[in-house]
Amino acid sequence: MKAPTREQGGFADIGLARIDTDRTRRTGMPEVVFAAGKTPDAIVATMSALYATSGFALATRVLPETVPGLIARLPGATFNEGARTLRMGSLARTGHTVGVLCAGTSDLPVADEAADVLDALGHTVVRRSDVGVAGLHRLLADFADLQDARALVVVAGMEGTLPSVVAGLTRVPVIAVPTSVGYGAAFEGIAALLAMLSSCAPGIGVVNIDNGFGAAALAHKIAIGS
Amino acid sequence: MKAPTREQGGFADIGLARIDTDRTRRTGMPEVVFAAGKTPDAIVATMSALYATSGFALATRVLPETVPGLIARLPGATFNEGARTLRMGSLARTGHTVGVLCAGTSDLPVADEAADVLDALGHTVVRRSDVGVAGLHRLLADFADLQDARALVVVAGMEGTLPSVVAGLTRVPVIAVPTSVGYGAAFEGIAALLAMLSSCAPGIGVVNIDNGFGAAALAHKIAIGS
Amino acid sequence: MKAPTREQGGFADIGLARIDTDRTRRTGMPEVVFAAGKTPDAIVATMSALYATSGFALATRVLPETVPGLIARLPGATFNEGARTLRMGSLARTGHTVGVLCAGTSDLPVADEAADVLDALGHTVVRRSDVGVAGLHRLLADFADLQDARALVVVAGMEGTLPSVVAGLTRVPVIAVPTSVGYGAAFEGIAALLAMLSSCAPGIGVVNIDNGFGAAALAHKIAIGS
Amino acid sequence: MKAPTREQGGFADIGLARIDTDRTRRTGMPEVVFAAGKTPDAIVATMSALYATSGFALATRVLPETVPGLIARLPGATFNEGARTLRMGSLARTGHTVGVLCAGTSDLPVADEAADVLDALGHTVVRRSDVGVAGLHRLLADFADLQDARALVVVAGMEGTLPSVVAGLTRVPVIAVPTSVGYGAAFEGIAALLAMLSSCAPGIGVVNIDNGFGAAALAHKIAIGS
Amino acid sequence: MKAPTREQGGFADIGLARIDTDRTRRTGMPEVVFAAGKTPDAIVATMSALYATSGFALATRVLPETVPGLIARLPGATFNEGARTLRMGSLARTGHTVGVLCAGTSDLPVADEAADVLDALGHTVVRRSDVGVAGLHRLLADFADLQDARALVVVAGMEGTLPSVVAGLTRVPVIAVPTSVGYGAAFEGIAALLAMLSSCAPGIGVVNIDNGFGAAALAHKIAIGS
Amino acid sequence: MKAPTREQGGFADIGLARIDTDRTRRTGMPEVVFAAGKTPDAIVATMSALYATSGFALATRVLPETVPGLIARLPGATFNEGARTLRMGSLARTGHTVGVLCAGTSDLPVADEAADVLDALGHTVVRRSDVGVAGLHRLLADFADLQDARALVVVAGMEGTLPSVVAGLTRVPVIAVPTSVGYGAAFEGIAALLAMLSSCAPGIGVVNIDNGFGAAALAHKIAIGS
Amino acid sequence: MKAPTREQGGFADIGLARIDTDRTRRTGMPEVVFAAGKTPDAIVATMSALYATSGFALATRVLPETVPGLIARLPGATFNEGARTLRMGSLARTGHTVGVLCAGTSDLPVADEAADVLDALGHTVVRRSDVGVAGLHRLLADFADLQDARALVVVAGMEGTLPSVVAGLTRVPVIAVPTSVGYGAAFEGIAALLAMLSSCAPGIGVVNIDNGFGAAALAHKIAIGS
Amino acid sequence: MKAPTREQGGFADIGLARIDTDRTRRTGMPEVVFAAGKTPDAIVATMSALYATSGFALATRVLPETVPGLIARLPGATFNEGARTLRMGSLARTGHTVGVLCAGTSDLPVADEAADVLDALGHTVVRRSDVGVAGLHRLLADFADLQDARALVVVAGMEGTLPSVVAGLTRVPVIAVPTSVGYGAAFEGIAALLAMLSSCAPGIGVVNIDNGFGAAALAHKIAIGS
Repeated sequence: MKAPTREQGGFADIGLARIDTDRTRRTGMPEVVFAAGKTPDAIVATMSALYATSGFALATRVLPETVPGLIARLPGATFNEGARTLRMGSLARTGHTVGVLCAGTSDLPVADEAADVLDALGHTVVRRSDVGVAGLHRLLADFADLQDARALVVVAGMEGTLPSVVAGLTRVPVIAVPTSVGYGAAFEGIAALLAMLSSCAPGIGVVNIDNGFGAAALAHKIAIGS
Repeated sequence: MKAPTREQGGFADIGLARIDTDRTRRTGMPEVVFAAGKTPDAIVATMSALYATSGFALATRVLPETVPGLIARLPGATFNEGARTLRMGSLARTGHTVGVLCAGTSDLPVADEAADVLDALGHTVVRRSDVGVAGLHRLLADFADLQDARALVVVAGMEGTLPSVVAGLTRVPVIAVPTSVGYGAAFEGIAALLAMLSSCAPGIGVVNIDNGFGAAALAHKIAIGS
Repeated sequence: MKAPTREQGGFADIGLARIDTDRTRRTGMPEVVFAAGKTPDAIVATMSALYATSGFALATRVLPETVPGLIARLPGATFNEGARTLRMGSLARTGHTVGVLCAGTSDLPVADEAADVLDALGHTVVRRSDVGVAGLHRLLADFADLQDARALVVVAGMEGTLPSVVAGLTRVPVIAVPTSVGYGAAFEGIAALLAMLSSCAPGIGVVNIDNGFGAAALAHKIAIGS
Repeated sequence: MKAPTREQGGFADIGLARIDTDRTRRTGMPEVVFAAGKTPDAIVATMSALYATSGFALATRVLPETVPGLIARLPGATFNEGARTLRMGSLARTGHTVGVLCAGTSDLPVADEAADVLDALGHTVVRRSDVGVAGLHRLLADFADLQDARALVVVAGMEGTLPSVVAGLTRVPVIAVPTSVGYGAAFEGIAALLAMLSSCAPGIGVVNIDNGFGAAALAHKIAIGS
Repeated sequence: MKAPTREQGGFADIGLARIDTDRTRRTGMPEVVFAAGKTPDAIVATMSALYATSGFALATRVLPETVPGLIARLPGATFNEGARTLRMGSLARTGHTVGVLCAGTSDLPVADEAADVLDALGHTVVRRSDVGVAGLHRLLADFADLQDARALVVVAGMEGTLPSVVAGLTRVPVIAVPTSVGYGAAFEGIAALLAMLSSCAPGIGVVNIDNGFGAAALAHKIAIGS
Repeated sequence: MKAPTREQGGFADIGLARIDTDRTRRTGMPEVVFAAGKTPDAIVATMSALYATSGFALATRVLPETVPGLIARLPGATFNEGARTLRMGSLARTGHTVGVLCAGTSDLPVADEAADVLDALGHTVVRRSDVGVAGLHRLLADFADLQDARALVVVAGMEGTLPSVVAGLTRVPVIAVPTSVGYGAAFEGIAALLAMLSSCAPGIGVVNIDNGFGAAALAHKIAIGS
Repeated sequence: MKAPTREQGGFADIGLARIDTDRTRRTGMPEVVFAAGKTPDAIVATMSALYATSGFALATRVLPETVPGLIARLPGATFNEGARTLRMGSLARTGHTVGVLCAGTSDLPVADEAADVLDALGHTVVRRSDVGVAGLHRLLADFADLQDARALVVVAGMEGTLPSVVAGLTRVPVIAVPTSVGYGAAFEGIAALLAMLSSCAPGIGVVNIDNGFGAAALAHKIAIGS
Repeated sequence: MKAPTREQGGFADIGLARIDTDRTRRTGMPEVVFAAGKTPDAIVATMSALYATSGFALATRVLPETVPGLIARLPGATFNEGARTLRMGSLARTGHTVGVLCAGTSDLPVADEAADVLDALGHTVVRRSDVGVAGLHRLLADFADLQDARALVVVAGMEGTLPSVVAGLTRVPVIAVPTSVGYGAAFEGIAALLAMLSSCAPGIGVVNIDNGFGAAALAHKIAIGS
């Protein structure tokens, strides 16, 4: 399945995929492998090609049960269990700080994904967990420490209130991540998504449900952009 | 159209309707006329029959342009413009207090409906308006005054966050009213409705979108219930 | 994973969570652990911290297969199989009565959750099961016994009719709980939820689909509130 | 616009339409004109062709403001204002009885449409109005009179409960008509539609929202069918 | 769990359920057990009580893997594998005929359920399968044989077209059953449901998605009704 | 508002728009103006620029009340009232035939739009109207005349059945256009859209609701493509 | 279960199905077995009947684990693992070319189904994979090779952008296939479906989500149609 | 209605509203008046209070017909007709540049709102209009000029493709604004919203449908943030 790699105007055609080897130059962000639904062969082929080109490769949504097999074929790869990410190589530290907050402990996997991707991209990450609005004092206690971040990734499921409250407290751009945590009328994250899009607090950028990676990507672009 | 009224086992059959003259005894709450979509003839017939039976009649969702005509045919009726309610006669004061809060000024018509119905039912109403979460200090400034109410009706559109925050601050039962205020992904109140149903703060009772009357009815039953 | 517990202005930071130790004082209701989606480690850490603080801890939505492991690590904990709740310690009896009704036998798990939480919070619970509207005489037979409750939790799936009928028969505040019982156009509880929100009987407070716990929390606040 | 009518194997081609002149023979039910969205020219052409063929023509959803102009061009046509139907000629009486019930007075236009179409098709119609479940005694008072009907058309908006209760009380087939009466989570009749489809009372046939005509057509087919 | 059975005004209270022993008298249709989601204990208790009362008991949606255990505890019960129904005893033959048609072979389980329930209720059933509109000649070939039925149950998934075509060909009342057959935009039966509700052919009664039982119940009421 | 037009690599920048003057060469189809929601100034500027470049300009969804003003400023433009299209100049006849069918007379505006656009693009159009499935004989009577078309545009609202039936009768590619005709569960065309997407007859290409223009564009590409 | 086959006016009645043996003559496309949800017995019976009639049989959505059993009973059948298709016999080559493009590697199963069905129907297939819009140069690099195809099947999940971009670059008719690839707000293919239906590039025919087979059927009809 | 203004811990209570006079200090962004649905009295009171406090006031979604009356009462206020914004006073220039792109000319009102708000907040705005993906060369022609912006606000309706394409071409953070432009399956902006949330191009922050103001607020926070 692994056809010989060939550079053709900015991409590497490996048969089943055309890897975008030019992406970092254009967008400031390397191509990252979304592992869910891909075969181990496809993951290995893509990560290998990315690592060969740039000395760095990252995959998200990696199923834990596939990890031993993948690591055996991808020497030096390391797995972050909470974040479900697989990483090869490293990028330079940027010196920037990004905050990652989550409302409940059930939101941790999404927050972990965002935090690990940001770390992989070279940023320093400051965390707050279980600071939902049912007990506001948990958020306010040490909020000042977050005011120097370049961006705040705020993760919440259920009613998705936390980004609205945070955005009312800071100049730092807020990136809201709805999660599928909840049941019934939470509708797998729709309640939180709609709440974040309809927030009365202006200036919130929303990403897809459970999309910790996308939030990290936007935070990265904001952090490096100026 | 107005057939002679006749009492038949707890209702008055006026032809187009069977008025539930037994409702206050059974439920603690008189039948109230939902005027939207009813003809002036129907509103007059129903309110007259209710007033004749009990010395009290109340209608909600009354269109302002129909009010002069209605008042001409319903002697002594008074109209509350903000709440869009029409009232004849009065009920005894209960001595109970209920709070009515709303997140934004656009939520005022719904909050006004709740407040006016509660007043008509004999309760003292304490109001807070424009205390949405984008500026939390506006809510916290004088929150303690609300702690002695029998119930808090909390009205919010857009992302519908306010009831979650309020419920985390008080023992008083919170009745959440989503409003159709907002646009786009607020979906005419659906975002707020889902947020309130999915709240991480336990013990919130939710009513229909823009249903200030229903919130007042529940608050009334709670207030008189013990 | 279990960092040393430290009191900081009303919460206990145990690393993965900030436990709201101040919640009973503020809201009249202790923090309760929503076990679904949490790891056993997280459940044990949270319940232990709650129990250590207050002599009482309660978890809902506990998976039966995890119970033996949990009980081994939480001495004295007891499991209610129907309600899927895990309890440590007890609270004082309140002397109040709350009714819990359900329309069909498939709604029993949700009704059981509501009843067990109410019992844990110190209330006396009166039950009625399988009293759906397809055979109204089953409800009416001994309804009078419910008229002295402080609140009625009414659980129904499918078309969700029961709360409307009950609310037309009593002064007691009705808390409606839609369940995901049904198929096709019942849409996992949406049909019942919409019916309850749109009820022609005023004064019903609705909670999330299958949310027996939330209904109990609201009934508790109403019962103790006056 | 009115091309000469020509019979071609069971239909009359009048240019803009192919009128199904064979429909009564095949289905027991004549073609009826759905006037909403049609131009007066189209309504006149179609009703004229139907009347010329069979001595009977019926239109539903006729806008009141178009009626004078239509009647001027359709000699002998009569308009039922409540039902918004326009009728030419008559059909033989069938001797069958059909019941038409509605939950609230706002549901009357839909119930009137059903009743008028049934009358036009030759049936005797027995009515009950404003017998919603918030006051069950209004329904039960004289329910026995309905037990001899061939079918019961039960019209309800908001939570759409009435058909479930009725179907639990009778052997007569129940045809449920959800209406768009209500607001917010009633979603223009969706709440009532879903409730009726999900009813715990078996043997209810549901038609489209506000479709009084369709309910009458089904009742007609049931009544004449045996 | 099985409390002693006790007759109280038309129902038998067996603890977890109140069995409606009066239902056949009121509605012409015995109570039938919806087995999905019920425990074997509950199924056995309910069927035993029903059989003891009337000499007949029927359950639908019975999981095949539970059947051996159920039959061991319910002597004389028989299982229909295609229809997933479990039956004890029998009812008198009615002498009526009902047709059951389905569009595709994947719709057979739902059509089988309808047909078996009708058979259990004493009717003669005429079947047509795989007569969808992509090849209309398959339906038209022997359609005349269906014209003497008391009702036609028409089952279809995907785009749900068949009831519209059938209703245009016959005087017999059509009961439409959407199925969850299909994928993507068929949305688990929603496409078929909406199509059936919106049919241009008047006089179709629609039941819930996959609800073969409900269709049979309505056909039964129509068949016996006159 | 009309800035001087300037050719820049395949487009004409007129300030408020960049007109794609290269589109016919690339796609075989000229840019067409979607007039809905555009100001008269914008319509005039865009059509003038298109006409100046190619001697042909076409606009769809033109509001009738704006037509006199537009024609005054666009010399030689002609308006088709049924189709709501405005046309300047002409294209060469192609010699190809395309069929346009619609289920009901209320679908005519959409069918007219498709037919007029096809005519403007140079094709011969064969029409059939009011041939819905409630009376199949109306469709089958002269269906053979359509078998030589290059494509069949089939327009239907309500349950959207017609394309499935047509596609089962011909080798000609079928392009299905759902319309917003209907009410209630037709959901402004969603019922028809889902039915067409879920059709059991393979090989149907679906376009947006009421999108007669898009159907014509696809038919055009198919007709010229070979 | 396999009743003797009998030809009756264009179909073969095999008991559980009426096989449409006339379909190729009418529609240019043989009946194809949709295997999902069918029993192995039904698949074998149907494919055998089709093969016996025409020397060709094709099934889609075949579960890999059922293949060995099926092949054992269907001599000569071959399975395409990527496309999940099972084929017996062959059809003549048509000499036409159809393009099949997909946006991401996760869309490959759907693209493979389309490509294999087209190959089975006798067409030459040109493929492009992983050419999504996040790196447009991958699509543009060798796009000219696709300009001679009779149709382009464009497969995309997530935001479903690719067909819009492709349709802006070519005269060849574009058939858009949304896939269920994605998560959260992709809603199992709804985001892509809506985007394709709402495309600003005219002339795109959309098929159901994941419906590679339907896209191939439409491409086939277009290819042979002229 | 205008109660005397009073400063209480960071807000001015004017009776119907509590104006957040502390917002610029906390969030870097002044409170802006959302005029839709507010009475002229409320708009005047709020803008006057804001202007009195800070020398600057801005309102969005101002109805053109209310503008003369508002300007008469708000001396010095100026109205931007395209953007529907009303402005009093000014803020210091920031020296930063933000890009505002839109896909079609119908998206201009939303793009104008974003651009005007950014201008009011002191930024230099670079515009591109009508650069949708049906003609990609219109976007690529002078894209390089946008690479130095601090953020790109990308506005698109219909299928909402443009942000995905733009984000694949630049390091600058992309803020995507879906618009309600389109019809049918565009669902008032839902198609575009879902497409943007599901984009295959990482690092896009999405705001509510038609929310040009929110996009500007986020761009502002990003621009000033570093």
